[in-house]
Amino acid sequence: MPNIVDRRKFLTTTAAGAAGASIAVPAVASPAIIASNPVVEWRLVSSFPKSLDTIHGAGDTFAKALGEMSGGNFRVRVFAPGELVPGMNAADAVQNGSVEAAHTASYYYWGKDPTFAIATAVPFGLNYRMQNAWMYQGGGIDLMNAFYQRYNIIGFPGGNTGTQMGGWYRRQINAPEDWRGLKMRIGGLAGAVIAKLGGVPQQIAGGDIYPSLEKGTIDAAEWVGPYDDEKLGFSKVARYYYYPGWWEGQAMLHFFINMDKWNALPKHYQAMVRSAATMADIGMMTRYDLQNPAAIKRIAIGGAEPRPFSEAVLEACFKASNEVFDEICAKNADFKKVYEATLAIRGEDYLWFQLAEHTYDTFMMIQQRKGLV
Amino acid sequence: MPNIVDRRKFLTTTAAGAAGASIAVPAVASPAIIASNPVVEWRLVSSFPKSLDTIHGAGDTFAKALGEMSGGNFRVRVFAPGELVPGMNAADAVQNGSVEAAHTASYYYWGKDPTFAIATAVPFGLNYRMQNAWMYQGGGIDLMNAFYQRYNIIGFPGGNTGTQMGGWYRRQINAPEDWRGLKMRIGGLAGAVIAKLGGVPQQIAGGDIYPSLEKGTIDAAEWVGPYDDEKLGFSKVARYYYYPGWWEGQAMLHFFINMDKWNALPKHYQAMVRSAATMADIGMMTRYDLQNPAAIKRIAIGGAEPRPFSEAVLEACFKASNEVFDEICAKNADFKKVYEATLAIRGEDYLWFQLAEHTYDTFMMIQQRKGLV
Repeated sequence: MPNIVDRRKFLTTTAAGAAGASIAVPAVASPAIIASNPVVEWRLVSSFPKSLDTIHGAGDTFAKALGEMSGGNFRVRVFAPGELVPGMNAADAVQNGSVEAAHTASYYYWGKDPTFAIATAVPFGLNYRMQNAWMYQGGGIDLMNAFYQRYNIIGFPGGNTGTQMGGWYRRQINAPEDWRGLKMRIGGLAGAVIAKLGGVPQQIAGGDIYPSLEKGTIDAAEWVGPYDDEKLGFSKVARYYYYPGWWEGQAMLHFFINMDKWNALPKHYQAMVRSAATMADIGMMTRYDLQNPAAIKRIAIGGAEPRPFSEAVLEACFKASNEVFDEICAKNADFKKVYEATLAIRGEDYLWFQLAEHTYDTFMMIQQRKGLV
Repeated sequence: MPNIVDRRKFLTTTAAGAAGASIAVPAVASPAIIASNPVVEWRLVSSFPKSLDTIHGAGDTFAKALGEMSGGNFRVRVFAPGELVPGMNAADAVQNGSVEAAHTASYYYWGKDPTFAIATAVPFGLNYRMQNAWMYQGGGIDLMNAFYQRYNIIGFPGGNTGTQMGGWYRRQINAPEDWRGLKMRIGGLAGAVIAKLGGVPQQIAGGDIYPSLEKGTIDAAEWVGPYDDEKLGFSKVARYYYYPGWWEGQAMLHFFINMDKWNALPKHYQAMVRSAATMADIGMMTRYDLQNPAAIKRIAIGGAEPRPFSEAVLEACFKASNEVFDEICAKNADFKKVYEATLAIRGEDYLWFQLAEHTYDTFMMIQQRKGLV
């Protein structure tokens, strides 16, 4: 059975053919020429500081995979926020071509157009399995790229946090009324929902959250989940650690790539990019799923109180979210089209997952509480 | 900023250098030579017939990704079961080198050693998120490969079904006693547990299940989940469609590769194999998550009765499973080592998932039942 063709012979043959030398050599097989791996050097700006090692690390996974698959020739250098551009300007830097790529959260750019948000997370949206199903098989990647194209960007999924925690609160949220007047560090569409509930959403950068909570300038703040939240020490200044983060049933990160740089890639490098992004995507989720359990235990031992939002509280938030979506859909046809595509999958999968998945997990969680798993 | 080096110039340069021609050219960059893509032709036997298009398709995804990333030079031809070897002999064919690779379920080979089973699924084992966390980040891939090495095999995750259904039953399972005397088509470790419960496990090939159920030769049969089960029409001969398949909280497929063929690959082709397997892995899960919802609805409309196993039934099965595991661990140190590695993750993640993930999903499922999602 044919296997690896002798590499030296292959190179010599191809070489002579390409150079047009007059020595007698066998005919050149054109696919072999196409598949040589040219040197490509890309700069990738991450929106996430190195201290968020799981999220930032997804950019490193992407770069490493491309390097390995190209024999070291597709070289991606990862830059932390601020090294080249501020983290929240990553999409702009890609759009204008000042960098080739970014690892970022699409919903950071919802101010340009709320359609950006759907690729990451929207309140009461898809969970992890559903977001992947939509993106990888349900047309999500293509639908988002039809939209990103206007920004000269092509994007691929590149990481996930799973369902996030609902954040840190200096006072309890026992009823829907308790959102009223609550000053909370929360952004994007979730902030619009908090406002509809009577709260006061605030935009505060990561490093400023702790002192703001400590001083009481804000009453609550959301961040990510146990592993990342623990590092910022929120439990010392806000006792109640609510769940779930109903605005992030999952949160998917993306690799954004300048369209001109993308089009300039050989086809097989484009295939590597898709594949490397997928490696980063699954790599980030699995890292969180290994890291979060120990972190939540340490947080609880440290005195924080993990608490579920009540069903009544969640119902009020769900209702307020739907009002926000109705308003956006009424005036933004792009958002409506993409959002409705996700709703179709959400309805279908939340029926199906009630059966095998949820029953299995619920039984196992009961055994866990009994100390049997 | 440096970007894609002109390909024509690159080739000419490399070519002349490699051919040792005496024309004046710049020095050859050796990484570029290493990274050329030699022609490799592999045969991959799938253990899954083309009729199981989602599972079989994961092999196709793997082949396609490798072809695309290598510019068409890493060529994997996928064979259905029986075309080269029977589906259940895939591992042997890889071990003895008669094919380079297989797409198969590791647990098919539990008869050689039950340790094989853990890479796929064991009763009351990990769910999808946990299995991925264990495999990709928790040392699972390496731990299994230390074991597979004895069979001259290296393996990588390559697909998942998620939590399977519990199968089709001609009579109800309302209490643990109802397993007694139940003749059920079920294999592997799950069969050993069924036997411990008083049932009679049977090994029956896919095509023979329907007539066996119809004639009453067997009382029950497990297969996969709605999308695959529907095709075999089980609902016509066994009314009760129980869930969950407690022996498959997830079921992970693998690509098995002959170790000598693996070692003969250039490093960058090895990186492509890992990456292509990951593409197949996520591709298969997302396909099921899109396909199962519509199938379960059609099955229910067709007159089958989806029913949950009661908590008491599941508790009895859990207890019987643990007895089986204790017996195996007592005499198989490999199994014990690998199984205990999974238990650590199971315990941790079933604590953590109770918070954000489960609360979010449960709330959303309640809304689904209200017709609000």
